[in-house]
Parts: sequence; C-alpha cells; structure tokens
Amino acid sequence: MTHLAERLSRIEPFHAMDILARARALEAQGHSIIHMEIGEPDFPTPSAIAQAGMEALRDGCTHYSPALGLPVLRDAIAANYPATARLDASRVVVTPGASGALLLIFAALINRGDQVLMADPGYPCNRHFVRLFEGEATAISVDESTGYQLNADLIRRHWTSRTVAVLLASPSNPTGNLISDASMAEIARTVSELGGTLIVDEIYHGLIFEGEANTALMHSPDVFVVNSFSKYYGMTGWRLGWLVAPLAYISALDKLAQNIFLASNSPAQYAALAAFTPEVLGEARRRRDIFRERRDYLLPALRAMGFGIPLIPPGAFYLYADVSRFTADSQAFALDLLERAGVAITPGLDFGQYRSAQHVRFSYANKLENLRQGVTRLQAYLKDA
Amino acid sequence: MTHLAERLSRIEPFHAMDILARARALEAQGHSIIHMEIGEPDFPTPSAIAQAGMEALRDGCTHYSPALGLPVLRDAIAANYPATARLDASRVVVTPGASGALLLIFAALINRGDQVLMADPGYPCNRHFVRLFEGEATAISVDESTGYQLNADLIRRHWTSRTVAVLLASPSNPTGNLISDASMAEIARTVSELGGTLIVDEIYHGLIFEGEANTALMHSPDVFVVNSFSKYYGMTGWRLGWLVAPLAYISALDKLAQNIFLASNSPAQYAALAAFTPEVLGEARRRRDIFRERRDYLLPALRAMGFGIPLIPPGAFYLYADVSRFTADSQAFALDLLERAGVAITPGLDFGQYRSAQHVRFSYANKLENLRQGVTRLQAYLKDA
Repeated sequence: MTHLAERLSRIEPFHAMDILARARALEAQGHSIIHMEIGEPDFPTPSAIAQAGMEALRDGCTHYSPALGLPVLRDAIAANYPATARLDASRVVVTPGASGALLLIFAALINRGDQVLMADPGYPCNRHFVRLFEGEATAISVDESTGYQLNADLIRRHWTSRTVAVLLASPSNPTGNLISDASMAEIARTVSELGGTLIVDEIYHGLIFEGEANTALMHSPDVFVVNSFSKYYGMTGWRLGWLVAPLAYISALDKLAQNIFLASNSPAQYAALAAFTPEVLGEARRRRDIFRERRDYLLPALRAMGFGIPLIPPGAFYLYADVSRFTADSQAFALDLLERAGVAITPGLDFGQYRSAQHVRFSYANKLENLRQGVTRLQAYLKDA
Repeated sequence: MTHLAERLSRIEPFHAMDILARARALEAQGHSIIHMEIGEPDFPTPSAIAQAGMEALRDGCTHYSPALGLPVLRDAIAANYPATARLDASRVVVTPGASGALLLIFAALINRGDQVLMADPGYPCNRHFVRLFEGEATAISVDESTGYQLNADLIRRHWTSRTVAVLLASPSNPTGNLISDASMAEIARTVSELGGTLIVDEIYHGLIFEGEANTALMHSPDVFVVNSFSKYYGMTGWRLGWLVAPLAYISALDKLAQNIFLASNSPAQYAALAAFTPEVLGEARRRRDIFRERRDYLLPALRAMGFGIPLIPPGAFYLYADVSRFTADSQAFALDLLERAGVAITPGLDFGQYRSAQHVRFSYANKLENLRQGVTRLQAYLKDA
C-alpha cells in the first residue's frame, strides 16, 4: 500500500527509458544495438575540464559552495555572454543541471492552478515541473508551419486569465529548431504586455549549425534563461547548469536554492571554470561541426526512406520524424524496430500528445559509422515490413 | 516588480547565512573570526574517496547514470547496512545530497494541506520542503524532558485528520540527541497504527560517541530513511546522499527523480564507492573520535560560563545552548558576539520558534585550538558584557 501524492498521477516516466532498458537487455543477451534514442553527446568531457576537476579534488575543493554558486564561476558565466546581453554576474545562479534551474524557476513562479504555455512537442520534464507545483502545463500544438515553435500570435491566442508564464526552448528538443531573433523580440514584448513571465531554455545553445542564435537575454532584462554545461560543454554526468534571472528574483532564488539544494556540486563548479578557456571553446566548436556532419548524413538518408522531416533543423542533435507512412503507432514501431532491427529510437509520446503517435525522435549523438549502420538496418527493416 | 509564488512567503532564508556573510566581511577587513556557526566538518574528503573521484574523471566516467543511481553504488550502500535492516539494494535511491532525498520524499507524499509532524528545534529545511509542496509543517516543541526528540506520546497528541507523516532526525540537528531503539520502535508502530508515514533523517549516523545507534530500518520495512555521504564520509561539497524507501514507492520515486534531477553527479557516485572501504571507514571512525574530543572540551567550557546545555549530546557536532542568562534575543547576541568578539555562532531562530530567542547553536566542526580560542574570546566577552 502506498500513500502517493496526487501529483504522481500527472507525472509520467520517460517512455524512452523503456526503450533504453529493453535495448540494454538485448545487449546483455549479445545483440548489437544502434543507439539513436539517447539525448547525450557520445563525446567524453573535454580533457581540460576533466583535468580541472582532478586538480580541484587534489586541492581539496570539496566543501560547500554558496547556494548561488562559486562567485568566480558566476563571473565566468556572465563574461561568456556577449556585451549585448548586458548581464551582470549577480543575475547568474549556478544550479544542479538545467533540471535544477527549471525546478528553482517554477518553485519561484507557480501557484496552484497557474498555467504555463509551452510547445507540444517539447521536452517532457517541462510539463512535469509545472505539475510538481500544482500548476497546469498548457500544451500548444506546433508543427512545421511555425518551425515547431511558439510565436507571439500563438501565445496571445492561448493566453487566459490564469496564464502566468511561457516556456520556450531554442534550439528545441525534440525538433532542433530555433526561434528567430525577430520572433523572440516580439514574444518578449507580448509576454510583457500580457503581464507574464518569459522563460527560455537555451541548453542547446552553441550547437547551432547555420547562422547565429542570440540569447533571449538581449531582448529583455526580464526574461529567465536556463542553460547547462551538459550538452555544449560535454558535462552531462556532472549535473551542472545555470539560470539567469531578473535581479529582483535573485534573493528569492537564493532562499530556495539554500533550502532545496544547499549548493551545486563543488568539484564540478571548479571543473566548469575550464569550460570557457580557448582550448575547450575550440573543442566545443569542433564537436559542433561533427554534429553538423552527422545531421547532414542522417537527414537525407531518413528522408529517402520516407521519414517525414519537413524542415532542416539548424541545431541540437535530434531529428523529429513523421512515421505515418509506416505506422499509426510510433511506440509500437519503436519497440518493433528495436526488437527486429536492433535500432533504438524514442517514440513521440515522450514529447507530448500532438501527433505523437505518428512521430519518433532520432538522436545523432552517435558516431557516423554507427549512424550508417543504423540506416542500413532501417532500410532492411522497412523493406521487410 | 516580481511575480513570486505564495510559497516564497512561507520559506525563510538561513539566518546563519547573515552571520556567515558578516563573518566573511569582517575577515576581508582583516579581523580574525572563530567559526562555530558552520555545519560542515573541517576535514577534507578522505583521500581514498578523492582518489577514486580522480580516477573516475581520468577514465571518463562522466556520462549520465540511471536516475536511481549507479547499480553498483546502490548495492554498496545496501551492503553497508547491518543484516538486521533486511535491506535490498532495490530500495536504495541515490540522490543529490540528503536535500535531494527529502525533496523526492515530500514530492511523493505531500498533497496541499497535508500535515507533517516534526520537532522544534529542528533542521530548518525540513519545514520548507513541506511548504514547497503546499503542505503544513506541524512544529512540536521539544526540550530536554524528551531528549529534544518526538516520542510516540507526542505524536499521538498532535496527530490530526490531516496528518500524513512524521519526520524525525537521529542524531538531531541542532541538538545532537538520539532517539533510542525502544522509542523508535514504538514510534514506528504508532505511526503505522495512525495510518501515516515515518521518515527518519539519519545523516549524522556514525557520528555517535556513546553507545550504538541502529537504523530505523530495523524497526519496519515501511519507514523512509534519509542519509548522506556529506557528514560522516566528509563529502559535503559533492552533494551526494541516498534514501531508502518501501519497495512499493520505488517506481514513483524513479519517475520523480528522472524528471526533477535526471540523475545524481556521476563522478561523485564513483568516488563514493570508496566510502565503504576499510581505509575510509577507519578514517571516519578516527574523525568521529576527534569530534568526541572536541565535544568533551567545549561542553564543560560552555557550561562553566553559564550556557545552559542540560543533556550531553551523544552525536553530530553541535551543542544547542540556552543563552537566557545573557540575553532575551539570541539573534542580537550572536551578531554582537561576532562584531565584538570575533566568534560566529548560529542563532536559534534558524531551527524553529520554540524558545529560539533564548538559544544558539555551537558547531564544533572546527579544530580544538580554534575552539579554545573561541572559548577564551567568549569568556572575555561575557566578562565585559
């Protein structure tokens, strides 16, 4: 018998975990599996960061840091933004991953029944963070017609008296698409006029293959921005991220961080100081170029097989593909593909309700040779099907 | 202008942080400060743990772990409990610090308006975790007559139709007192009869100077236990803890952990595998003996000056002292002591409302020579006062 809180009924597990668990079981039985389900770069942490972490351990940097983060790291994060962001380090809060940043922001902003607008498809945890605090995630269906993103018009149309915030992600997971500067500026103005708060997830910033993507901070000092050392700086398992908040919220966020986390991991913070060195920044750019190469291989290969990917996603490392040519049940499709062809992908269900049964997400956070092998298996699977 | 959620008005910052910030400012001006406000062992992380952390970084163990923690670490944690705890590793969840464990437990258990019984004085974050999820922390005043702990009788008397859980800490912060096996067994039975959930914070387990303290797990398979590598294993800044839950809750906790944290810090988990080696366990016992020595010096010295410490606390590294002989405002007393004598202590207000204006907490997580210097300063301060 359990006494679970009601919110548990509104929070789902990651369906990708079922895929991953089954993939691991098949591997344990000796089967070869091509992993295209995992949202984690296959690269190790850049060696200069790992080295800085080892030095921190050697030097005994293992005590609590301040709740808002090491001042020297907050300074380094702020200094890494362009001058147009007009960012003072006092607005930077270091967090245990971007997860910790989202937890703090929603704890600070959401009362019971408050609504937060977000795109469907979108990152699964977002709606669950809102539900954790008894808020309502208002999923707005998006498709290729708006670049799989919200815009000012969609926000106005879905705004109600209970809406308090809008959460965007650029580049987005699962689609890899951006919000243009012009659209972001208009969204920031619109949300401000409506009296709400704009939150922008920028954890895939830097992993952008065409053009420039500016931080939303340049459009308004009132926006909340979430970022992380996980994806661009290759520090997934270190669980270190940050948020930038309007100055007026910092003391409340400090109070919450003290109580919820005490602080972020100290060795990780010392290690992350190396992230902004020319050596690591150069390595990050080289890795970005490798991701572009993979996208440029995988996208046409999938399209040629009949997967529907109407836009070329300029960022992140995902392709969100329409599988309605093959199935009306993308979850069953993903499981069958895994069992019969040894290719692991994520069913659309993880990312929302809208057309999710006809979509899957491919991650290209895997070596080109493995992606080629995956494509070969997919071709054979679809031929047999 | 801010749009803060209502819960922020019910969550307080650590008052000790004001003391610490002022102490750091005084130090920056060249003043010497004796720190007895900080709840963090002065020892570095044991070298075998730091070494294991460095090896993990060298070996690239920097990817995501499963949300529940590395299986090998869950196994090691379970194996470190005595057989009487009858603990299977499947019931162990690795968390980002004990903070992460409390966050998961209260997220899983608390609906709006639910009451959780806890001792006043107690660890400040406890009531705030409950408030984070719109629950009510029912503070039960405790004093020396019950060893500053709840007991079955107090729990029965304060139970209402809205009470869902009881949170205990043994040894407790700020008083360092234990709950006896007999009392814990009776409490477990009582809470079960009342249809509630028992949560026991054991993060100071091991730091016990007289007698044995058994885990609450031996009294019931239905209890939630919170623990940490921070205090006993000297890993504060690594932010790594764990919880043990009844098996029926594990899938819900997994789902929550996936969404709230993704996972705990991976290098820290690999490092923590060294915590249960004979070398580190021996070092932890030596450190415990040093804490005992400090207590045995500081306690009589404070009593001789007129601080009221009716019981000899058998655990943790704190002395909770009645200062009513000197002041009716322990916060003003602590600030004045810092300014005029260079001794930093924590005012009672951090730990609750009950008699908090007449209490302060001394931490003896500081070297004996510093404690001696602190006592000398205190003696001079009280003589002048």
